[in-house]
Amino acid sequence: MSDFKVKFLPAEVSIEADEGVSLLEVARRAGYVMQSECGGQGTCRRCKVKLVSGDVFLTGEPNISSAEREQNLTLACLARIVEDIIIEVPDESELTFAKDEFKPQWLPGEHPGDELHTFALKVDPLLQCLSITVPKATLQNNSSDFDRLCSTLEREGCKRPFKADISILKGLSSALREDNGFLNVQTVRIGNTTEICSLDTTEERPLYGLALDIGTTTVFGRLIDLSSGEVAAESSEYNRQIPCGGDIIHRIIYAGNEKGLNELNQLVLDTIGSIFGNLISEVDATEDQVVASVVAGNATMEHLFLGMNPKSIREDPYVPTVTEFPLLQAGDVNMPQMPHSAPMFLSPAVASYVGGDITAGLLAAGIHKSDQLTLYIDLGTNGEVVLGNREWLTACACSAGPAFEGSGVRCGMRALPGSIDAVVRDLDSGGLTYNVIGGGTPRGICGSGLIDLLAELHATEIVDARGKLQQEKDGRIRKANRKAEMVLFDKVQTGGAEDIVITDVDLDNLVRTKGAIFAGIMTLLKGVGLQASEIERVVIAGGFGRTLNIENAIRIGMLPDLPRDRFEYIGNGSLRGAGLALLSRKMWGELHQIAKMITYFELSTWPGYMDEYMAALFLPHTDAALFPSVL
Amino acid sequence: MSDFKVKFLPAEVSIEADEGVSLLEVARRAGYVMQSECGGQGTCRRCKVKLVSGDVFLTGEPNISSAEREQNLTLACLARIVEDIIIEVPDESELTFAKDEFKPQWLPGEHPGDELHTFALKVDPLLQCLSITVPKATLQNNSSDFDRLCSTLEREGCKRPFKADISILKGLSSALREDNGFLNVQTVRIGNTTEICSLDTTEERPLYGLALDIGTTTVFGRLIDLSSGEVAAESSEYNRQIPCGGDIIHRIIYAGNEKGLNELNQLVLDTIGSIFGNLISEVDATEDQVVASVVAGNATMEHLFLGMNPKSIREDPYVPTVTEFPLLQAGDVNMPQMPHSAPMFLSPAVASYVGGDITAGLLAAGIHKSDQLTLYIDLGTNGEVVLGNREWLTACACSAGPAFEGSGVRCGMRALPGSIDAVVRDLDSGGLTYNVIGGGTPRGICGSGLIDLLAELHATEIVDARGKLQQEKDGRIRKANRKAEMVLFDKVQTGGAEDIVITDVDLDNLVRTKGAIFAGIMTLLKGVGLQASEIERVVIAGGFGRTLNIENAIRIGMLPDLPRDRFEYIGNGSLRGAGLALLSRKMWGELHQIAKMITYFELSTWPGYMDEYMAALFLPHTDAALFPSVL
Repeated sequence: MSDFKVKFLPAEVSIEADEGVSLLEVARRAGYVMQSECGGQGTCRRCKVKLVSGDVFLTGEPNISSAEREQNLTLACLARIVEDIIIEVPDESELTFAKDEFKPQWLPGEHPGDELHTFALKVDPLLQCLSITVPKATLQNNSSDFDRLCSTLEREGCKRPFKADISILKGLSSALREDNGFLNVQTVRIGNTTEICSLDTTEERPLYGLALDIGTTTVFGRLIDLSSGEVAAESSEYNRQIPCGGDIIHRIIYAGNEKGLNELNQLVLDTIGSIFGNLISEVDATEDQVVASVVAGNATMEHLFLGMNPKSIREDPYVPTVTEFPLLQAGDVNMPQMPHSAPMFLSPAVASYVGGDITAGLLAAGIHKSDQLTLYIDLGTNGEVVLGNREWLTACACSAGPAFEGSGVRCGMRALPGSIDAVVRDLDSGGLTYNVIGGGTPRGICGSGLIDLLAELHATEIVDARGKLQQEKDGRIRKANRKAEMVLFDKVQTGGAEDIVITDVDLDNLVRTKGAIFAGIMTLLKGVGLQASEIERVVIAGGFGRTLNIENAIRIGMLPDLPRDRFEYIGNGSLRGAGLALLSRKMWGELHQIAKMITYFELSTWPGYMDEYMAALFLPHTDAALFPSVL
Repeated sequence: MSDFKVKFLPAEVSIEADEGVSLLEVARRAGYVMQSECGGQGTCRRCKVKLVSGDVFLTGEPNISSAEREQNLTLACLARIVEDIIIEVPDESELTFAKDEFKPQWLPGEHPGDELHTFALKVDPLLQCLSITVPKATLQNNSSDFDRLCSTLEREGCKRPFKADISILKGLSSALREDNGFLNVQTVRIGNTTEICSLDTTEERPLYGLALDIGTTTVFGRLIDLSSGEVAAESSEYNRQIPCGGDIIHRIIYAGNEKGLNELNQLVLDTIGSIFGNLISEVDATEDQVVASVVAGNATMEHLFLGMNPKSIREDPYVPTVTEFPLLQAGDVNMPQMPHSAPMFLSPAVASYVGGDITAGLLAAGIHKSDQLTLYIDLGTNGEVVLGNREWLTACACSAGPAFEGSGVRCGMRALPGSIDAVVRDLDSGGLTYNVIGGGTPRGICGSGLIDLLAELHATEIVDARGKLQQEKDGRIRKANRKAEMVLFDKVQTGGAEDIVITDVDLDNLVRTKGAIFAGIMTLLKGVGLQASEIERVVIAGGFGRTLNIENAIRIGMLPDLPRDRFEYIGNGSLRGAGLALLSRKMWGELHQIAKMITYFELSTWPGYMDEYMAALFLPHTDAALFPSVL
């Protein structure tokens, strides 16, 4: 028996909770994916809730304003249950997954089948699906059931030796005798062995592979027809781990004990399970038609997906447990939706902070096959930078922080309805025009909007080259707690609890973030003795790249000042790469070559990195010669 | 709630049972391993029980005498529970496991470590156990935990590529950091991959391998020290499947539905579990010190051990599901005693009736390395014959039937206390002297006793060359139900319920059995165009070979008439071979070569076999020239 009743408004969801349990946890159990960056430390202010009735015990002083306090707002992570309560969850505290916002928006030729074609490859899935007829045993050919199966597979082009699990062998005798030896067989070639993953006697039907990109913030899944290579469905959701910490570091801390680790593992599996359900219902398939999966994610996400403690990733000298993962089965990773024996391939990582999402993205970008000197930048919750071509690859992770996802920025938020995703300055009036996702009044600013804003405030000298607000330049700048902040929207205007502002602290975070990325790029360039101007192609990957204004990103000194036609946006490179590997044994092999090719620069100890970073904490840069096109 | 109470005497065990359940099944659940050959068909008369109070419903007419009926005896397999009853289980109906009878009696040099030495091989177990220290990660060597582990193993002589299950990877990070990188690692080389099976940080302690011979009747286990190669303990028990059928065919029938199959699977696992418990308590080890196993058994036993339906083994054209088994883990086969990841190797079979017990026995006999033309005969519940040398091997299974284990012989029994295991004729008086195992009055006759008896009765012409009792030759011969039978011991003399007799039907069974074995030998010889006299070595394996009188076996025409010094007894060849394979990767490889080398003769359809068989149904043989030394 639980002690108390917690009711959530406006959804009218009620749940029982024991005394002392965190309200954030209760909300999670009630099905809410609450905003949280700090993993329940009471610092990020994201999990605000309104107490409608009853009271809670606070384990710390919540970082909220007196205005918020007056509205009975508090932070769910600090609140402990001590009696029956009724709670209202404000829109901005919940990661309501706006399906429309994440609608698949495929780039031209992004269907893996088409992409393979551009790589001059054919569809040749990692999991081979064959329909065969195994001859009956006779007194002349009285070899075992398994031997006759293997001989038949060999005639179909599979290579010896063959291997099958005991679960497969258990079903073989009756399957062979059910339909005169007719069998659907699924095989995977691992090392020099052909592994028989599945056999059945059902009629022909579409078989799908699942490409997964497990992001720190969002998990994307694509169902891909294994015979045509077409994307049959796409779905995505926020990673349900978010309430346990907004970024990798907070997740690793949360995984510090077994309970936390298991919880994170289950939360990502729940997220995937939900995506899986959407995907199969979209194509009207049954669970067992999804027969293989390629999973890409950063090293921490891959570890948590497998239930492995990622602890060592954040401890000097920052090593993961494993970078090249063994072939797994859905049963090994507790994915009950897929057939137990369905193979799961994990994209190989390079190092703790250059994971399987980056190797998959490079595969999709085709850098490893190109003569062009290419810069690959993944702008996700972390920032990873890769430089190279078919001959060599170098990579680093920029300790950029997730400021572009709204974290560490007072009114920052993810690219959700209500967020400002673009800011344009009228060249005549100098006035700023804001684009709000979904229209209406703004609730906050997302990454691309912050970059635009920084570029324009700097261009109009409201922000100086060091990223400080110049109070004398604009009447909307005020002091609060001795820090300067500029009001973009008044709360009266928006109807929100607070004004929408940009503060000196926010600006400092943004400059540090852009500086870390640019310093990473420069460090890789210097490491191989090249100039920025020699980069022939820049590939931008990651969620917020889609709305990124390249021009503004160069103006603030985040991206190198190159001819604009050298920049391209690849979308979710990780997901695309996972899909390609799923469909092509050759691509899967290349994915591993990429991982092996990459030389990793550990920036935290890299000589010269700190100098690059300090030089980049300037708009656009202390060395103006690097940005000739920026006035 | 069960319906009725069944009490067993003299043990005073009570158990509840539902209406209609077979008394044989109730007895099994009460812990009795009842004698049964027919698998509950009501024909073999082995499962006699005495109704002390209450009544049962009989599903058929039990094949018992009126004297037995008067004593309230009935057959447990035909009896169904309809009310509370009290049952007495006579000694002879229960397979009481006489530990003393199965005491390990090692042949000279049988310790696998010693044997390896005679093969000029060193102890080099299938499972390699290493103690290593993995260097800490540094910023200079910041490869993943797994990569540093692999590099360390490589320096210790293990070969790349390495593979580890997710369960191993999950524990790696903390294990590496527990004791400054010190690790005990267990690896297996499979194909071209080194699989990491286990890692821990415990202190050094003896590690054991389990060699198992799963016989239709008896299961033998040996605990072998993996570093010295010494046998640390040996234990054996009746296969608890026996009440489900005395021979392979009855077991396969019993496994016809999933319930029966699961039951047989669990019964053999229970048997092994009990043996396992005895073994580790004998050496005072913990379960997790037993880290690997090699299992040998005939194809049906191997299938049932894995929970695979052996159905096709008895259906024309007699093929098993698999002959070469994948490497398994204790967890795959539901052996909860051993560590989940402990590797289990199954000895490869050749065909449905030449199983992994035979290949293991050949390995132990070293035939595949010998220039001598060798005949290998396994006299177990089935009779398998192999002929060959290092160049070639041929094999067949004789449908001999288990008459030498007492089945199909009225007073036949296994070699248990109370059984006559040797019969000697006084050359002067012509009188027969009987040796009774354990002394005292006899309860029946076991295989070696039956062979002696047949030889002596034929020598004294009491039995003619066709195996018929000659009533005029001996006053102890009488007619019962129009069939001749000879009284060996009067029930007054023994105190048993019946006289100990040998009948014409018994003699016919024995002649057929010896004829089948000899016909198998002749068929193999003719198949390769050789004469019996060319055989240079005869190896007898199997339980009852130990007490077998070779001279008498030749006199009845079961074994070829060769100089007696060409015969040797190898004991349980299957168990010895399993132990050798466990301790030597080379031997394990050779075991598979043996399985591949063997040409299998399917006698049921072999041209000429029937003629050989008919010719052998004669004492010693229709062609007396084959037995020159037999008068």
